[in-house]
Amino acid sequence: MSAYLDRNDIRDAYLDELVEFLRLPTVSARNDIPVMQKAADWLIARLESLGAQARLLDSPGMPVVYAEIKGDSDRTILFYNHYDVQPPEPLDAWSSDPFEPVVRNGMLYARGSDDNKGALMSRIHAVEALLKERGTLPVTVKFLIEGEEESGSPSLPVVVDHNRDLLKADACIWENARRDDAGNPTMTLGNKGMYSFELRARTASADSHSGKANLYPNAIWRLVSALASMRDPQGKVLVDGFYESVTPLSASDEAICRETPANGLRQATKLGLDELVPGNDDYSVNRALFYTPSMNIQGIEGGYTGPGHKTVNPSTAFARLECRLVKGQDPDAVAAMIATHLEKHGYGDIQIVNKKAGAWPSYTATDHPFVKVVAEAGSEVYGKPVVVLPSSPGTGPRFVFRHQPDMPIIALGVGHANSRAHAPDENIAVEDQFYTTKQVARIMEKFAAV
Amino acid sequence: MSAYLDRNDIRDAYLDELVEFLRLPTVSARNDIPVMQKAADWLIARLESLGAQARLLDSPGMPVVYAEIKGDSDRTILFYNHYDVQPPEPLDAWSSDPFEPVVRNGMLYARGSDDNKGALMSRIHAVEALLKERGTLPVTVKFLIEGEEESGSPSLPVVVDHNRDLLKADACIWENARRDDAGNPTMTLGNKGMYSFELRARTASADSHSGKANLYPNAIWRLVSALASMRDPQGKVLVDGFYESVTPLSASDEAICRETPANGLRQATKLGLDELVPGNDDYSVNRALFYTPSMNIQGIEGGYTGPGHKTVNPSTAFARLECRLVKGQDPDAVAAMIATHLEKHGYGDIQIVNKKAGAWPSYTATDHPFVKVVAEAGSEVYGKPVVVLPSSPGTGPRFVFRHQPDMPIIALGVGHANSRAHAPDENIAVEDQFYTTKQVARIMEKFAAV
Repeated sequence: MSAYLDRNDIRDAYLDELVEFLRLPTVSARNDIPVMQKAADWLIARLESLGAQARLLDSPGMPVVYAEIKGDSDRTILFYNHYDVQPPEPLDAWSSDPFEPVVRNGMLYARGSDDNKGALMSRIHAVEALLKERGTLPVTVKFLIEGEEESGSPSLPVVVDHNRDLLKADACIWENARRDDAGNPTMTLGNKGMYSFELRARTASADSHSGKANLYPNAIWRLVSALASMRDPQGKVLVDGFYESVTPLSASDEAICRETPANGLRQATKLGLDELVPGNDDYSVNRALFYTPSMNIQGIEGGYTGPGHKTVNPSTAFARLECRLVKGQDPDAVAAMIATHLEKHGYGDIQIVNKKAGAWPSYTATDHPFVKVVAEAGSEVYGKPVVVLPSSPGTGPRFVFRHQPDMPIIALGVGHANSRAHAPDENIAVEDQFYTTKQVARIMEKFAAV
Repeated sequence: MSAYLDRNDIRDAYLDELVEFLRLPTVSARNDIPVMQKAADWLIARLESLGAQARLLDSPGMPVVYAEIKGDSDRTILFYNHYDVQPPEPLDAWSSDPFEPVVRNGMLYARGSDDNKGALMSRIHAVEALLKERGTLPVTVKFLIEGEEESGSPSLPVVVDHNRDLLKADACIWENARRDDAGNPTMTLGNKGMYSFELRARTASADSHSGKANLYPNAIWRLVSALASMRDPQGKVLVDGFYESVTPLSASDEAICRETPANGLRQATKLGLDELVPGNDDYSVNRALFYTPSMNIQGIEGGYTGPGHKTVNPSTAFARLECRLVKGQDPDAVAAMIATHLEKHGYGDIQIVNKKAGAWPSYTATDHPFVKVVAEAGSEVYGKPVVVLPSSPGTGPRFVFRHQPDMPIIALGVGHANSRAHAPDENIAVEDQFYTTKQVARIMEKFAAV
């Protein structure tokens, strides 16, 4: 463990540096090139100060920073992070300026503190601490830092694809995970995939008088029937082949489902429910959350929904859906299955539009040796076990490395359950920043040894 | 046939009088009591000029005019009309002032010309013509003229209920029917009933992240499943008992379905369709339109439907529906069946709100002798057969007389297929005004004789 990171002068300097970096309003949605370039320049200078070879990678979008420092062993760890942040709006919901960081009661408030400038700085500081203490790094490290993650990482797939050899590594530490509700540190081993799309029903060239409802087809009924054919009332997707390619759970996955605390009842109560759809027991919740794909309706609209009644038979209606996909599923294949389903069930007239086969699922095997390295490094630092989550509940761009299926990718970060990542008053505990920094340093040491 | 009504001076005077009455802006939605009272006073004075005993009936709403003139036989005909009109808006879509009637190319343009001041004046003028020619009426006539029809006739049920004996009649001529697309005069023998309601699904106290779609119930899916349980994709309502009380078709009804020109293909083409839901043949169209109840979704809404995608699992959704009911069905009973259906199928959590058991179906038997009287009177006047429509496509307040199930109620009017009843440039053919007036006079003569 790095004694260097326990020095008060170092902690003060590192916190100051994080604050300095948080001041840059790197909102990718604003498309403000100068501020993004400034952040990239700042990172390159900082990484060079570590002795790294740092540079920009060719990218069609915001600057992408790459840096590499050779280590003693033949092992390589890749750090993936991003320097962009979510828009801070609504501004009046913040207790203090989102880009003027302040510490109150041990908590650092700033846009990007949790997501993910704190995590990014923890990687840099961990590397520096090891270099100060050991002179060299136990493993080779590579940094890949993009500036478009909060805008959906549109350039990342291209950049990674053009730099496959450069970015090759034995393991990858991803941005962000957070302490759970009970305060346990967590790490996530994956992201779900996603296929999103809209269904548009048009049954006639104009709406008609509902007194003639038996004569003219109703677009809402047609859409409702098509939707009902795709998923049963219990949530099972009825599209042929949908579950076929889902990877069966390993013994290690099963163990995770049994043993990971899921707090089903607490989650249910938060939303005013007596129980969750799969039941409140840990196994059912974990299995549903981590290993079961879903088909969700985000929104639906058709006909007249204003005040009173309007006796109309609507000729158009639409619904927006998304499938969250798990290990083994391919969004393009799922898209094709859904189109086939509609055709086969007589709904070929319903248009599938705004299709976005946006993300492939990405899972690191729960029994991969690197999982143990990261978990043990965490429990040594935090003094309590790290909860291993097979997947984040959300979707993310880990899949851009799916050409390296053997590279484990594990996310860890500096946040906690109330960090409010995309909301006003985003914050982290200052102490967590140093816990994570130490954990990252410890991972490098341990990974060299396994 | 009344020669009186062929006199040019009389026709000019009657057209002038209709124009005078059309100038009154009797928009019930405006709640302008003085203008409504003025119209009622005008009607009372006019009816008294025929020798009628005319007066207002007690009503919680706009003035309701009643008048009676004794006739020679023991037969009584009741005329139901209304003096209120639809709002004229949007005003700039009119070619001329809606309340400054003008005749262009034989067509009279004014709000209320078709619906239904033209029809109302045709009754008054028919009575006057017979009195002028014969000195007395062949049948007793009763006028019931309300001022809230375009606002849903909220007071009419109460007024009719309080005056059951007064309003007793052997037959009733209702407001409005129109020449069809082919120019044939029509008469309608009924109105559909209606039960309208909203379904509201609420599955949690707040929306949730769609990455957890397998944990929390989705209100849109729940609503879609409930809706799909209520009606099959072909339009058949799956609610137990829904069709049970529908009156079987009589031989006369069957004949009407076979023989009434329905123009299925023309109707389909108007909406860009190759065929109507029941098929384009006359029998199927007529049967579906006149004798088959429907369950229609007027509108549906839930979740996020703005631009782009929002990865949300919505906790609320709603749909607005209406059932159009036919002969034998009771809206209150249908309401109970739907509530029972939802309960029985596990959707007891879905709230049924804004229930409106607003209208009972009303049908006059197609083989009733009065139908023949009206049809023959029409064919004598128009010189071509009158198309007998068992029902208007819409719903209306004929049902307020359902305590007199033996009283036939037949609608006939002065409009044509492009009269634009509730739209800008409402109009009638001047000639049709006199055709209908003659038909009403002839009905009184013929009905005394059967």
